[in-house]
Amino acid sequence: MGAKTKGTDAERELVHLLWAQDWAASRVAGSGSIKYPVPDILAGKDKRLLAIECKITKSDSQYLTKEEVADLKKYAAITGAEPYIAVRFAREDWRFLGPDDLDVTPTQFVVTKTCALRHGKLLAELITAPKGI
Amino acid sequence: MGAKTKGTDAERELVHLLWAQDWAASRVAGSGSIKYPVPDILAGKDKRLLAIECKITKSDSQYLTKEEVADLKKYAAITGAEPYIAVRFAREDWRFLGPDDLDVTPTQFVVTKTCALRHGKLLAELITAPKGI
Repeated sequence: MGAKTKGTDAERELVHLLWAQDWAASRVAGSGSIKYPVPDILAGKDKRLLAIECKITKSDSQYLTKEEVADLKKYAAITGAEPYIAVRFAREDWRFLGPDDLDVTPTQFVVTKTCALRHGKLLAELITAPKGI
Repeated sequence: MGAKTKGTDAERELVHLLWAQDWAASRVAGSGSIKYPVPDILAGKDKRLLAIECKITKSDSQYLTKEEVADLKKYAAITGAEPYIAVRFAREDWRFLGPDDLDVTPTQFVVTKTCALRHGKLLAELITAPKGI
């Protein structure tokens, strides 16, 4: 299975999980290939909007390019959406981190499994926490 | 050119027009084919979110199914987005109508060109008008 298919399947999985919690979630067409700074998933409920960059990995670290993170922050700044990186490591639940929760290397950003499990929100926490808390 | 390609091209055109006005717009992957009530386009700016069903036609009337309109209203009710039907008739600019601006037939909804030009907002009006006014 190619990286693109794997990514799309991960996005679909997260969209289903969000709808199961009564959030209106959808994948963004062309995210990663169009010229605009759009996230992978948009999820809304009761005037909260989540902009989500979605990653799944079998490794113990998930890298993100500086552009991916900058685009996510730009989208959030325009719209007022809450920016999140959703990461799922093997045999773990989805974890949600803000752009400022990421570690930075000289060339990119990284989420380690340890960091995600320690600092990342679970879906249940993400969708109950009001914005800014 | 098939109906699906024509629809996708129309959606892309509207996405570009929205970005040109500094709105963060994107097409929704799988709208029209997935089981969830999602619109064709989502556009956000400064905490306003527009949920847009997008239609282009060479005819003088554009029909929408009752399900399309019900889904748009359902999405808006969950998220707090403003629901709009965007219609472009041949040689006219895009016009934006709310679900309650549509005419109803026994089996579906319809936007006539006359109605759209008379009651539909232009893009410039749509994006400057605060919600509810």
